[in-house]
Amino acid sequence: MADPLRQIKHIGIVGAGNMGTEMTFGFSEQGLAVSLWDISGENVDQALEMAKNEKNLKGEVKGYHDIHEFVKSLKDAERKVFIFSITHGHPADSVLEKIEDDLKEGDIILDGGNENYRNTERRQKELEQKGVKWIGMGVSGGYQSARRGPSMSPGGDPEAVNTVLPLLEKFAAKDPKSGKPCVANIGPRGSGHFVKMVHNGIENGMLSTVCEAWSLMHKSLGMELDEIGKVFEKWNSEGELEGTYLIQIASEICTRKKSPQGDQHGEEKGDPSEHVLDDVLDKGNDGSRAPPHLRPYHRNRPLLPRRQRGRAQRLKVAKKLKMPQPQKASDVDKDAFVESLRKAVYASFLCAFCQGLELIARASKDEDWNIDLATCIQIWRAGCIIQEDYIANMLQPIFESSNERMMNMKLIDEVSADLHKNYEPLKKVVLKGTEWDNYVPSLSASLEYLKYEGGTMLATQFMEAEMDFFGAHAFDKANVKGEDPGKASKGKHHYEWRPA
Amino acid sequence: MADPLRQIKHIGIVGAGNMGTEMTFGFSEQGLAVSLWDISGENVDQALEMAKNEKNLKGEVKGYHDIHEFVKSLKDAERKVFIFSITHGHPADSVLEKIEDDLKEGDIILDGGNENYRNTERRQKELEQKGVKWIGMGVSGGYQSARRGPSMSPGGDPEAVNTVLPLLEKFAAKDPKSGKPCVANIGPRGSGHFVKMVHNGIENGMLSTVCEAWSLMHKSLGMELDEIGKVFEKWNSEGELEGTYLIQIASEICTRKKSPQGDQHGEEKGDPSEHVLDDVLDKGNDGSRAPPHLRPYHRNRPLLPRRQRGRAQRLKVAKKLKMPQPQKASDVDKDAFVESLRKAVYASFLCAFCQGLELIARASKDEDWNIDLATCIQIWRAGCIIQEDYIANMLQPIFESSNERMMNMKLIDEVSADLHKNYEPLKKVVLKGTEWDNYVPSLSASLEYLKYEGGTMLATQFMEAEMDFFGAHAFDKANVKGEDPGKASKGKHHYEWRPA
Repeated sequence: MADPLRQIKHIGIVGAGNMGTEMTFGFSEQGLAVSLWDISGENVDQALEMAKNEKNLKGEVKGYHDIHEFVKSLKDAERKVFIFSITHGHPADSVLEKIEDDLKEGDIILDGGNENYRNTERRQKELEQKGVKWIGMGVSGGYQSARRGPSMSPGGDPEAVNTVLPLLEKFAAKDPKSGKPCVANIGPRGSGHFVKMVHNGIENGMLSTVCEAWSLMHKSLGMELDEIGKVFEKWNSEGELEGTYLIQIASEICTRKKSPQGDQHGEEKGDPSEHVLDDVLDKGNDGSRAPPHLRPYHRNRPLLPRRQRGRAQRLKVAKKLKMPQPQKASDVDKDAFVESLRKAVYASFLCAFCQGLELIARASKDEDWNIDLATCIQIWRAGCIIQEDYIANMLQPIFESSNERMMNMKLIDEVSADLHKNYEPLKKVVLKGTEWDNYVPSLSASLEYLKYEGGTMLATQFMEAEMDFFGAHAFDKANVKGEDPGKASKGKHHYEWRPA
Repeated sequence: MADPLRQIKHIGIVGAGNMGTEMTFGFSEQGLAVSLWDISGENVDQALEMAKNEKNLKGEVKGYHDIHEFVKSLKDAERKVFIFSITHGHPADSVLEKIEDDLKEGDIILDGGNENYRNTERRQKELEQKGVKWIGMGVSGGYQSARRGPSMSPGGDPEAVNTVLPLLEKFAAKDPKSGKPCVANIGPRGSGHFVKMVHNGIENGMLSTVCEAWSLMHKSLGMELDEIGKVFEKWNSEGELEGTYLIQIASEICTRKKSPQGDQHGEEKGDPSEHVLDDVLDKGNDGSRAPPHLRPYHRNRPLLPRRQRGRAQRLKVAKKLKMPQPQKASDVDKDAFVESLRKAVYASFLCAFCQGLELIARASKDEDWNIDLATCIQIWRAGCIIQEDYIANMLQPIFESSNERMMNMKLIDEVSADLHKNYEPLKKVVLKGTEWDNYVPSLSASLEYLKYEGGTMLATQFMEAEMDFFGAHAFDKANVKGEDPGKASKGKHHYEWRPA
């Protein structure tokens, strides 16, 4: 492989937040010169200050307060290459507007934000007119991965994506099993950001599931944090949850004690017999980890303030609602329950992957993106938040060897067998969690999902009748050829339930 | 009140589907001349054919195949007024494009589709340049209401809304209690379509809840349809579910038998000992009753085909998943369970109203729409799908007498008392439904919602720690002044859980 640095020697990074700063250092370590700009000059200065303590920087890092000087600093490059690491929506548009006149044909912008893929496609179209290539690129893994190698899903103009791909491959996390980089050309147009949106959806499902498992063990089984840490460690070491990033860090979180020196990164010193976790407050959960356009209402706000509203208000509400709080279980076989819980967590994870992969398959077909599901699994092998070895090991060879386009993951033998096998443990955990007034929103949603996906006559039979009653939505009839099961079209019958 | 027909004597309706056709007849019965156009000439002809059987039409109904002739037919009006009753998104844009050159300053278009309020605002801005007023108007109640009087939520330019309001008031459903019309000037810009989106969200929650209640009684308690019909009838006649449209039609659906003559509207004749409902197939439930931008993925397709995909695929999946199907309960006190179920259904409805009203309150504040919640309750009093007398009777006087802006409905004494009181029945129903492998997606989501809204330390404590671990999202600390409860902003602490 040719040295990727022969083509791209200098890169411009827009945004000096956590991710942008770590990427700056990461690319510098790869030998690239990096120009850095942020709308806040203070952020740029802070990043340059941090750079002084970095030992392995190779390429020169230069910070800019003036955006035009920032763009000019890249003028010797044949094609200017930028990475945007800023908030999606309006901020991205406003920076683009500022630099648009300084761009020329062939320049490439990689948008590493969590952008709505439709916005990505709008910008691609607009910039295409002057030959500038906008690539929508998901970047997953958090701030430490942004430095050591994230998982990335670039999508857009194929020539432009292939131009930057060698560089991204060098920078990306590597699958420890195969050594392959966790980045690939996902497909055209908004496909890269769509895949990242789905990644974040799966992440949200997994995060909820893990925190419910923790709450069940801690609040209802009455297990101490260190003991829970050992359980997570064991889960992460073998079986269906083997090599799961969110389980692995869960075990670290449960056992992390305060230190007499603090964490040496600004956190004050603490009593080494105390757990860091005990200090951490819950906040709200208003769904803001969901992709922006899945939230019921949002107004282009940064993610954090929305997620973190809530607790003050909730404590007021709690006083009024007087809900029972999670109870300690009496009369439960702890070890047996913990084993059921492990299976339930796996079932819930697998449901999240099924839903996510089906969204990708459906969108890929409708939008002619031609996304390879094996590639999605490949880029999720390392560096990203939803890394899960067992599921990846199960699915990747199936996707690689299949000749047909897979649209429904539950039709895969291995998947359906595992979901079937773990239905009862999942049900048991939901029943007990409900009985104990503990929190099971994600686990119970997974259970209902399985029943709905595998039901031969759903409760929606009655919903169909109601919708036909008031809305003339029409229905198909049971046991009628061509209707049961019918085509994916409007039903054939409308009944005048209440004659006019 | 001046006769609304003095100002508007002629109206143009775009779209001759169920709703458009019934509105055509409805406005004609009010004395208006109506011009009707549809992209399918066949639909127009069919509507004109149906008009022949209408006895009470007053205003002349004329159909058009040519859209320009259609627009021209309104040329004598001082201001042309159109109602769009077509699919949101692209279809609305494409019709607008066709007639845009024929519009002049002062003309008014009422968009009665389920449009995304952001699209509504985009069109308002575009048309504002030539002085044409686009009003985003929710229309609820289904095809029979479209004729007899729907519930409507117009929002947009205040002068334009007030111009058509007298006409809409005449056409709208009337609250039987006060005689007041179920329509009002909701507010500026996209507010009308936003309120309709929320209406549809509440509707979806209520529909799911009712069909789950039906499935529990039918499949697990083993009750016959006629018996269930009597239960729904009783629920609808007294107590917390009194006067609930979806419960009322549920009782009709459960008791409706086939007739030897058919339904006289095209449905074939049947055995009068058989229930119509037994013929109705479930279909998929892919969330397409949710507002378009709440769906995980959609591509501007009409609603119906998406909702109704699914069953063929699901039966294939069912064979692989081998999920247990809903079981008959043994050993349950039927009457006691049915009473718990009634309370659980009410709790679930009330949760849906809380969520919906809070969305409106939040958006109204952020967007400066100044929506009056009492007005929302007023327009939902009759003619619409979510009509629920008990909740409306409880909330409307509170909203009318309150001087402060209410943002959190659970802080209302009456609401929190009712939610508290019905938590245990809801929990009992979810436990039993889960035990019986019956379907409780909506009921269990309501239960989890209550726990999350009224919890003093949520499972998300652990999620916060995980997000701080990988994403440096930062947290607030327990029992620290100014942090517990803290402001709705990013937390103050980031811990280096795994030092770099």
